[in-house]
Amino acid sequence: MMTIDEKEKQALLAASATLARRKFLGVAGTVMAAAVVAPARAGSLADVPARQVGPSISVASDRSKYVHLKRVTEATPGKLNVDPGLAINSKTPLDKLVGSITPSDMHYERSHSGSPDLDPDRHQLLIHGMTRKELVFSMDELRAMPCVSRLYFMECSGNGWENWKNADPELTVQDTHGLVSMHEWTGVRLAYLMELVGAERNSTWMLAEGGDAAGVARSIPLTAEILDETLVAYAQNGEPLRPAHGFPIRLLVPGMEGNLSIKWLRRLKFGNEPFMTRWETARYTQLLPNGKARQFQLYQEVNSVITSPSGKMRIRPGYNRISGLAWSGRGKIVNVEISTDGGVNWRQAQINAPVLHKAQVRFHQDWTWDGRPTRIVSRSTDDKGHVQPDRESLIATMGENALFHYNGQQTWAIDADGRVTNVLS
Amino acid sequence: MMTIDEKEKQALLAASATLARRKFLGVAGTVMAAAVVAPARAGSLADVPARQVGPSISVASDRSKYVHLKRVTEATPGKLNVDPGLAINSKTPLDKLVGSITPSDMHYERSHSGSPDLDPDRHQLLIHGMTRKELVFSMDELRAMPCVSRLYFMECSGNGWENWKNADPELTVQDTHGLVSMHEWTGVRLAYLMELVGAERNSTWMLAEGGDAAGVARSIPLTAEILDETLVAYAQNGEPLRPAHGFPIRLLVPGMEGNLSIKWLRRLKFGNEPFMTRWETARYTQLLPNGKARQFQLYQEVNSVITSPSGKMRIRPGYNRISGLAWSGRGKIVNVEISTDGGVNWRQAQINAPVLHKAQVRFHQDWTWDGRPTRIVSRSTDDKGHVQPDRESLIATMGENALFHYNGQQTWAIDADGRVTNVLS
Repeated sequence: MMTIDEKEKQALLAASATLARRKFLGVAGTVMAAAVVAPARAGSLADVPARQVGPSISVASDRSKYVHLKRVTEATPGKLNVDPGLAINSKTPLDKLVGSITPSDMHYERSHSGSPDLDPDRHQLLIHGMTRKELVFSMDELRAMPCVSRLYFMECSGNGWENWKNADPELTVQDTHGLVSMHEWTGVRLAYLMELVGAERNSTWMLAEGGDAAGVARSIPLTAEILDETLVAYAQNGEPLRPAHGFPIRLLVPGMEGNLSIKWLRRLKFGNEPFMTRWETARYTQLLPNGKARQFQLYQEVNSVITSPSGKMRIRPGYNRISGLAWSGRGKIVNVEISTDGGVNWRQAQINAPVLHKAQVRFHQDWTWDGRPTRIVSRSTDDKGHVQPDRESLIATMGENALFHYNGQQTWAIDADGRVTNVLS
Repeated sequence: MMTIDEKEKQALLAASATLARRKFLGVAGTVMAAAVVAPARAGSLADVPARQVGPSISVASDRSKYVHLKRVTEATPGKLNVDPGLAINSKTPLDKLVGSITPSDMHYERSHSGSPDLDPDRHQLLIHGMTRKELVFSMDELRAMPCVSRLYFMECSGNGWENWKNADPELTVQDTHGLVSMHEWTGVRLAYLMELVGAERNSTWMLAEGGDAAGVARSIPLTAEILDETLVAYAQNGEPLRPAHGFPIRLLVPGMEGNLSIKWLRRLKFGNEPFMTRWETARYTQLLPNGKARQFQLYQEVNSVITSPSGKMRIRPGYNRISGLAWSGRGKIVNVEISTDGGVNWRQAQINAPVLHKAQVRFHQDWTWDGRPTRIVSRSTDDKGHVQPDRESLIATMGENALFHYNGQQTWAIDADGRVTNVLS
């Protein structure tokens, strides 16, 4: 039998009288009731509900009527729960998910003119520019090519944007960090397509253009890393992409801001300088303290967030398991530390295996809360040596005008009543 | 830039005039039209469909209207596409999925009295028998405990049962092998719960009982491997279990026949001998050639199947990518070989990374079909040295009366017209 850490066991048993309380399936945005749930207790078969008959075999397993998963819609930073027609994004319910993979229908959405449902029999991909041939590929052709499947996180560069300026105490972790997701992606390697069209060796940039009405288009520098990892993807978690995620094909540039992973991909053009689309001149630039705008800040830097306990949950004194997610666009997470005293002392969290390159990882730490107000916070480190900064250090570098790439440590305050609230640090 | 294998590239380019053809999104069970799809060809922006506006941001990303994924229902072996009310299972559409993870709603179903949707606030788990304490745990208590997330395949021991006796040429790979799936499972380790209740050291068997009307119950031997790996799981692919998969909790015994992973788990009882439920005496036993029945044949042995091209698909001469899945209940897949001449010559397939313990892996191989009738077949090897047997060897050991644990090599015949058909070897 595996050995269970005796201290961990004793902490749990001692705390059993106040065990449990936060409800896994609660409705987002409501304050969790501090119900006193009966602890694990002596019992017999009479205590367990009777067996139940159920509906017959189905052709697709639906969710339980007791499970309520939905994304929250956002108009501008912090303007939440708006009519979907007015929203610019909708966010993954990180407070209700466990593990590291995101269900396909819960992947966050961000689009600039809605999500067209393109006909895969008509859709084509043009590859041209500095290439020996200008070729058009159908979906059947792309799907017949050699392919790979990889687990990668995807994150909007706007994730966490609320926290650049202020900390709304009404925000949940879905609100503050719900623009990140992880799937198993399947597609053709960009490098393979470049060989097919004979991309010229001195082409150093690539334009990728989407088939949505906005025609979102981005210039992508052809670094060794991007050439090695980028996919033209047609599947997520084993099934064809959902329309909101680029059906029938999208670009997938692992670890870089989500906006580079152009959805509804219709065109790749090779050149030797950036194409300077409005999506990288007027949009998706970073306003620096000196008033200048930084272009092509592409990496999603090392990041982490505690998903439980988190904003608007309520905990009770005693045993509490801290759980969260960590990721880095630079590589693999090698360490996550948690402070339960507002950043004074740090203790290493357990990281769930396998830990993969540019993938989200789930971390855990056991914690016994003494019932006094405190602040909990996580920080992650990747295999390139990057450490997630505290908010002060991040602001010192980037100023407070930046809108994108917030990766400051997320602090949750816990008051004497066990209420968990978003605070800046 | 990554180096593309020159031979692979030339094979693809040479074959481009006959590229593509099989339709990824075709409807299950229909013969694929041998449409001559235009090859990759010179083109310009005028060839690519115009940009399209789409519906606004949503709170859950639905599937494309062009994507048709559904499981096929089965009554008795080979009696397919029956009314769900009459079905005993429904099967994962392996012919339409890529990668290695199964979408939660496409996980195969097998139940004995339907799928109850249990109230998680009322559901409880009793742990008793040879334990120091008899305890009852609520869902909130279980979810608050230390947990792990792991990618494991799950397979019904009846997977492939049609092939013990005969080879129906009308079967697709969904029909022959659709009782296997893979998810990321999250839950509490059985070993942790055993410490909490103080399971006695000389308890060598455990009874697990489900909360469905049939009260499916199985005796599980407490081997070191089972103690190390077994979970009481409450989530699949990041979200709560679906009712058909045991919501709110199920046992998860990795690598063993799916029936051990009791759904709607209500009771674990420890003892020192098997409990001899009817699910292991009358059902789920294996009839041997000598007329005796073998009990407790639990491992899902090393297995593999080519999912494309597969039954009822149609291919054209020239380049074809062979793709499939391999798994072993004994451990990790270390090798997959493919024969395109009916088992005479074998060539190593590429295995998609990461390759994980008791997880499905996706394999690929490039192949240029010369247009002559042939047979294609795969065989896998695991890290314990087990090699997937051909059907003849399997029958020599087990006879033809067995119903469960078929892991013979799956052969697909291809006729002169490119039609792919299920055959025995």
